[in-house]
Amino acid sequence: MQKADFLDWLRAGNITIPAALLTEYKNMHLTEQELVLLLQVIHFSEKGNDFPTPVELSGRMAVTAFDCTEMLRALIQKGFIEIIDGDSPEGIRFEKYSLEPLWEKLIDRFLLNRKREKVEARQVEET
Amino acid sequence: MQKADFLDWLRAGNITIPAALLTEYKNMHLTEQELVLLLQVIHFSEKGNDFPTPVELSGRMAVTAFDCTEMLRALIQKGFIEIIDGDSPEGIRFEKYSLEPLWEKLIDRFLLNRKREKVEARQVEET
Amino acid sequence: MQKADFLDWLRAGNITIPAALLTEYKNMHLTEQELVLLLQVIHFSEKGNDFPTPVELSGRMAVTAFDCTEMLRALIQKGFIEIIDGDSPEGIRFEKYSLEPLWEKLIDRFLLNRKREKVEARQVEET
Amino acid sequence: MQKADFLDWLRAGNITIPAALLTEYKNMHLTEQELVLLLQVIHFSEKGNDFPTPVELSGRMAVTAFDCTEMLRALIQKGFIEIIDGDSPEGIRFEKYSLEPLWEKLIDRFLLNRKREKVEARQVEET
Repeated sequence: MQKADFLDWLRAGNITIPAALLTEYKNMHLTEQELVLLLQVIHFSEKGNDFPTPVELSGRMAVTAFDCTEMLRALIQKGFIEIIDGDSPEGIRFEKYSLEPLWEKLIDRFLLNRKREKVEARQVEET
Repeated sequence: MQKADFLDWLRAGNITIPAALLTEYKNMHLTEQELVLLLQVIHFSEKGNDFPTPVELSGRMAVTAFDCTEMLRALIQKGFIEIIDGDSPEGIRFEKYSLEPLWEKLIDRFLLNRKREKVEARQVEET
Repeated sequence: MQKADFLDWLRAGNITIPAALLTEYKNMHLTEQELVLLLQVIHFSEKGNDFPTPVELSGRMAVTAFDCTEMLRALIQKGFIEIIDGDSPEGIRFEKYSLEPLWEKLIDRFLLNRKREKVEARQVEET
Repeated sequence: MQKADFLDWLRAGNITIPAALLTEYKNMHLTEQELVLLLQVIHFSEKGNDFPTPVELSGRMAVTAFDCTEMLRALIQKGFIEIIDGDSPEGIRFEKYSLEPLWEKLIDRFLLNRKREKVEARQVEET
């Protein structure tokens, strides 16, 4: 093992996600495979690829490219990700995944939990 | 939505993992469910619970407590996690999960990839 | 360099902070030294030491223990950190730093900026 | 406070750095101001700006643009950052900061500490 390996590890970096995603995906009706697919999309985006193909995604997952296609379709249909069209500064058309819907749903879920906890706390006080 | 909700979100915090775990778990023969189970174990530990039960884990996952038990057993058998016994300063016996074996395997995998890339680079040069 | 060194690096881990703290500390009237002192307090806490001494803090900083004492005092006075008293489960009294006030101030600042941006956007629209 | 504010916070994101940087910058002869300047350069880069100006940097720091210029010069001279020239795919010349030298120095420092600890451990054993 050499210093160059160490530097390469540093360059690979980390992925940081809100802890709430890990504790709430189940309640948002996501499976573990869908959660990891979303993490892969986030990671590809951080590395500059905003529209990874099912083949690229399945290359890092224990599922087939066909399954990735199906999961992406389901995630779009259930409103967790959306495809955004745009034009680059050089006038080239592009498509990219946006995870804004995921974060919106996560915030909704988080606030719903908070409201419930307050209601329950009040009920405990009243009894 | 109130400021208190925002503070609560900050308290929940983030989870940060090496990007290599996300890109290599497939090559380490882990499934998405096993990967997420490991993330849950890491997150529980960061919040002060070093030995979450299958019921606690399945409470946040789209799998049953029985499945969690089976997965934990498999992860121990395949050498990704281990159970460590110890005595607290107050003399109370405890058990906890250690993910050292996971990080060792991840480093091995990372270094193996690096070696392959170097061999391939040399072969390209020689042709 | 050996694999054990690599593992040790992983064990040392990372520190993750809201990007807003880095972009807003200046507007919150914090200096770079105070910001780094706060990061050190956060890091010590994550490693299990909730009440690092000025000597421990200055051991990692380019300032003296005396300066750390002065900065801690100023940060408490300006309402960025507070000292909380408590009793451990074993009945031992302890003191610890809480950074709740910092996060509250950061959120206030963030929301204030958002409000300003909206007002400016409306003014641009109206002209 | 509204949900849109929350989403904006999420978009602002986090900054994650190796804990070793926080515990070792002092031993690497960096001041708190230099450390924070480096963090700002990292953060600008993550947001797509690889060559922030002293004015942009000082806009977020409690120091003047002149001081930022001086600090950047000193950091280059001491071998913590370097300026890299390149050509974009569209043939436009650009300059950007590279923090590779910082990470190399940090790894050197980390490995040096490890070596010292081992020597000390051996000396303790022998006595």
